[in-house]
Amino acid sequence: MSILDTIHAPHDVKVLNRDQLKELAKEIRQTLINVTATNGGHLASNLGIVELTIALHRVFDSPRDRFVFDVSHQTYVHKLLTGRNDAKFRQIRMEGGYSGFSDPTESEHDTFIAGHAGTALSVALGFAYARDRIGDHKNSHIVAILGDASLTCGMTLEALNNLTRTTKKLIVVVNDNKFSIDENVGAISIYLNKILISGFYKTVTNSIKKILGRGKFGKAIVRGVRKLKCAIKSIILPTSYFEYYGLRYFGPIDGHDTAKLEEILEFCKLSKIPTLVHVKTIKGNGYADAIHFPETFHRVEPERIGATTLQPNEVFYGEILGKELTKLAQKDRTIVGVVAAMARGTGLSYLRDHFWDQYVDVGIAEEHAVTFSAALAKCGMRPVCAIYSTFLQRAFDQVLHDVCLQNLPVVFCIDRAGIALHDGMTHHGIFDLSYLRLIPNAVILQPKNIQEFVNALHSAFKWHRPVFLRYPKSCNRNTDLDVLNFSQYLQLGKAEKIIEGRKVCFLALGNMVDLAHKICKELENFGIQAGIINMIFVKPLDEEMLREIAQDYEFVVTLEDNVLMGGFGSAVLEFYNDNGIKINVLRHGWPDNFIKHGTSLDVLRSKYGLSAIDIANKVLSTLNAYTP
Amino acid sequence: MSILDTIHAPHDVKVLNRDQLKELAKEIRQTLINVTATNGGHLASNLGIVELTIALHRVFDSPRDRFVFDVSHQTYVHKLLTGRNDAKFRQIRMEGGYSGFSDPTESEHDTFIAGHAGTALSVALGFAYARDRIGDHKNSHIVAILGDASLTCGMTLEALNNLTRTTKKLIVVVNDNKFSIDENVGAISIYLNKILISGFYKTVTNSIKKILGRGKFGKAIVRGVRKLKCAIKSIILPTSYFEYYGLRYFGPIDGHDTAKLEEILEFCKLSKIPTLVHVKTIKGNGYADAIHFPETFHRVEPERIGATTLQPNEVFYGEILGKELTKLAQKDRTIVGVVAAMARGTGLSYLRDHFWDQYVDVGIAEEHAVTFSAALAKCGMRPVCAIYSTFLQRAFDQVLHDVCLQNLPVVFCIDRAGIALHDGMTHHGIFDLSYLRLIPNAVILQPKNIQEFVNALHSAFKWHRPVFLRYPKSCNRNTDLDVLNFSQYLQLGKAEKIIEGRKVCFLALGNMVDLAHKICKELENFGIQAGIINMIFVKPLDEEMLREIAQDYEFVVTLEDNVLMGGFGSAVLEFYNDNGIKINVLRHGWPDNFIKHGTSLDVLRSKYGLSAIDIANKVLSTLNAYTP
Repeated sequence: MSILDTIHAPHDVKVLNRDQLKELAKEIRQTLINVTATNGGHLASNLGIVELTIALHRVFDSPRDRFVFDVSHQTYVHKLLTGRNDAKFRQIRMEGGYSGFSDPTESEHDTFIAGHAGTALSVALGFAYARDRIGDHKNSHIVAILGDASLTCGMTLEALNNLTRTTKKLIVVVNDNKFSIDENVGAISIYLNKILISGFYKTVTNSIKKILGRGKFGKAIVRGVRKLKCAIKSIILPTSYFEYYGLRYFGPIDGHDTAKLEEILEFCKLSKIPTLVHVKTIKGNGYADAIHFPETFHRVEPERIGATTLQPNEVFYGEILGKELTKLAQKDRTIVGVVAAMARGTGLSYLRDHFWDQYVDVGIAEEHAVTFSAALAKCGMRPVCAIYSTFLQRAFDQVLHDVCLQNLPVVFCIDRAGIALHDGMTHHGIFDLSYLRLIPNAVILQPKNIQEFVNALHSAFKWHRPVFLRYPKSCNRNTDLDVLNFSQYLQLGKAEKIIEGRKVCFLALGNMVDLAHKICKELENFGIQAGIINMIFVKPLDEEMLREIAQDYEFVVTLEDNVLMGGFGSAVLEFYNDNGIKINVLRHGWPDNFIKHGTSLDVLRSKYGLSAIDIANKVLSTLNAYTP
Repeated sequence: MSILDTIHAPHDVKVLNRDQLKELAKEIRQTLINVTATNGGHLASNLGIVELTIALHRVFDSPRDRFVFDVSHQTYVHKLLTGRNDAKFRQIRMEGGYSGFSDPTESEHDTFIAGHAGTALSVALGFAYARDRIGDHKNSHIVAILGDASLTCGMTLEALNNLTRTTKKLIVVVNDNKFSIDENVGAISIYLNKILISGFYKTVTNSIKKILGRGKFGKAIVRGVRKLKCAIKSIILPTSYFEYYGLRYFGPIDGHDTAKLEEILEFCKLSKIPTLVHVKTIKGNGYADAIHFPETFHRVEPERIGATTLQPNEVFYGEILGKELTKLAQKDRTIVGVVAAMARGTGLSYLRDHFWDQYVDVGIAEEHAVTFSAALAKCGMRPVCAIYSTFLQRAFDQVLHDVCLQNLPVVFCIDRAGIALHDGMTHHGIFDLSYLRLIPNAVILQPKNIQEFVNALHSAFKWHRPVFLRYPKSCNRNTDLDVLNFSQYLQLGKAEKIIEGRKVCFLALGNMVDLAHKICKELENFGIQAGIINMIFVKPLDEEMLREIAQDYEFVVTLEDNVLMGGFGSAVLEFYNDNGIKINVLRHGWPDNFIKHGTSLDVLRSKYGLSAIDIANKVLSTLNAYTP
């Protein structure tokens, strides 16, 4: 029996000796590698945090003490140590398995849902305020665990500015692996690096050893701590960035030495002011490939180790974007790609590698990314701001207030639009059509395939307006990539008639055109020839086409990879209603619920009555209702 | 003729001598006091920035050099110095007058639209990037002017983190008056204060005097500057917070001494790295009342000096909220009011003054405010997060991802919902129904009057869900405030039938109920008795009521103080459509445009065909179409 198999709760970690802990770390790493090989997921970041997580669970007493993991993609180890080393862990990120992020519905050891960077400090401050004021989890410790990248995120800095006036008792652990998703950027990152190479580390740990001895804690320390004040002072960095925020700084600490980590964390428990522990870890520690290519391994696509998510006939939209934008940037030097710590995910790493001076990575700072892009556009540049749908939510006000209010020609490339599958609730991009559509001046479109995507990208630069080009992660490789080229400009607000039909017409958006074809096949079995329109644009709508359809068909069916509330289908309804056109509209999209993670789009669609067969059946029963 | 009247462009300011500048400052102050007495507006902040604005225009060469004012409510002086000392200035914030904020459509001296705090640095970085890379405004200077409060805003900090890697040539002026809107909060504010009281100021100015002499600039300095390196070093704060971000720090400088300001700013022009000038000003300088009560005078309501916006029969919703919440907080110690630098504006200053330990002001940090509130709710507290509709846009992701995803019972009090009138495009709260409605678990409601508001507030705590209670700034004082008390709980999702009618029924939300009454009066002249439903809830909708209405009436008219795209009317449409109920819906709300500022709601409504008469006429013609 392995040691990991004996761990059913944090208590079981506390009783292990140093040799057993080493063995445990090894077993955890092997488990992580095995399970992400099958399921995909955040391998490198979890490999990097194994010893830190073990140390946290040995020093603190979860769930009485509370851990708040930022983003929380690095909680696999935490899950393994808190009674979740089971079949559901083997199924992590898959249908029926655990979430790849923190989830309080799974375990009392998960304190808050996370997924987007930068929330942990705000959450920890809220916990601390409630503890201090109403005695919630009285006398307990709250530990926020952030990546260094979260310090580029405005929200973290807002919380940092509020920290010491909210509580005197909080421990912040900065897990510094020099990477957010891509390599980190910005002044704070440079500052942290300076500390890392300054040799300060040795001084600190030697002082601590001298003062506390090794591994001898408890009552003796508590009694002795006041006498040690002067000595302690010498181990604190005298004028650190974090002292401006009122935190006591410790670091940098070797994040792969559980004994050292435990020493420092025990020490923090005694502090009368908030502390920040700067932990240096190696992302991907223990898996050779992951160390050397941490950016690639941030989220392991299964195929990198063995299995595969991308079907052989599929292609990443990001790949197309990167290559096409690089071609465009070569011809037009005013084009600049702007990303928020997502060079690879968005495909703009390709642009960076070819034209680094037409590429800006601002860190996890979507708000700045968007308004910075707006200013570039105001100066006559052609910014392309590539952000995942779910993360663009962070910059909603900037999109509305800084870009669209002035009608500035920023091209937004919104990747991961629609269901994100494995990453689940916090990562689905199913709200963007609704939250963008309400904004004046916005042009919103979704192409049906990669050829139309390339055409749309070229066209976006012609419209001189804010353009929101949304697309999912991947799609069918319906065109040979080697010969994929811009072929023609899209006409702003013009839909495309794909199939002429009778009685019922599908108004499909983007990847839903494929679904429309499938539904039509089902309907053909019943002798029904439905029409299909590739709508392309959600805003402006092709009103002429909608009028024509209303004359030719009995009813229309809208298909969108977005929530039904206020989305594409609503736009169609609004148009028909406000123009007094009587036609029945059957809307299809995601319901007014948060959708859990899933393994396949087909499974998820079936679960919500959105499979081709489900929709075909609904259409049939509606047709029957109309033609008695 | 006054000196101010001789100023037609920044050049005219450059030729004045010190005495004339003093006189100019005096005249500007008098103009500001006069015009805000009539029109309202941001008096104190503009009184505080008179000398700084004069100095900026003397040292720099606008529009070649570019000023980016954060928030830009403090640009009245700038407007006066850039050819806008005219009739439209007398009409500032009124129909046909200039905007109370920066607006590039008014003048080439206004470089970007602002209105929400924290955008200036991102915009300035964009300008600098474009200048450095494509030569836009080649060799020009870019000056970002921020209030110290903007340093509590995450977006500013995101930009700060990106500053030195974006450009080497940028001047940041921090106008430190120790107030954002309310008194500033947080670590950075304390840090700035420490500098202010440290006596560092004298050392700096003395050194500068010694090195540069007074008022002798130009070529001599440029030649001498390299030799002065060592001397210069001594006037720079050695380890300042801003140095971590790579900026050279100068300050604090007396912001009411144009000569000194000019010295420092000329000096900054020569710097080879970005500089930050910390200017100390007195908010409200030159107007006794404004100095002593800067919070009150941040935005002068005209009545404070003479005129009046609030009719005698009106009352601020914020006032009701503050008082009622204080009563509730006394009984339930888990209630906490959370604001983002808007104690007075939201009315929560009342709670603060009575129960300071159940009140948190996080600074201009809406993102943190929302997630912090979510965490409080998770711990069993009852947070009331009071934010203006337009500023809640800043925290859209936090509302969706941190509050609603976990269905946490945060009560949002959304003030300034609907048209904001004088503050215009950047401040209207006309998008919230649309951007909130798409979020699962959200309860969204708007009461019709203050009694219903009090009842709604009490009820919100009973629903144990995220509640979004929206309301405009003020409403009719239909109940005596002294006897205003909670009377009964609202039933979640239940509308109220106000008038039974025939043929046409108005579905009105909040302040639109009053409008519905007016329309009905118009219709009575034509012998039509229309029905009125006070919908109260946008989510969940009262579906039972909607079904009943569909049976009793020929068509319904929706009325909302929100954009039509995806708003309340769309919700009604979606319900009727998806349930196969055939009824005609006439939707009324704001069109898909940004709405300029205006003096009165009636005028603005007429402009967009939303007056009682306009709507009555539309109803009549629709009725005629149905009954030939």
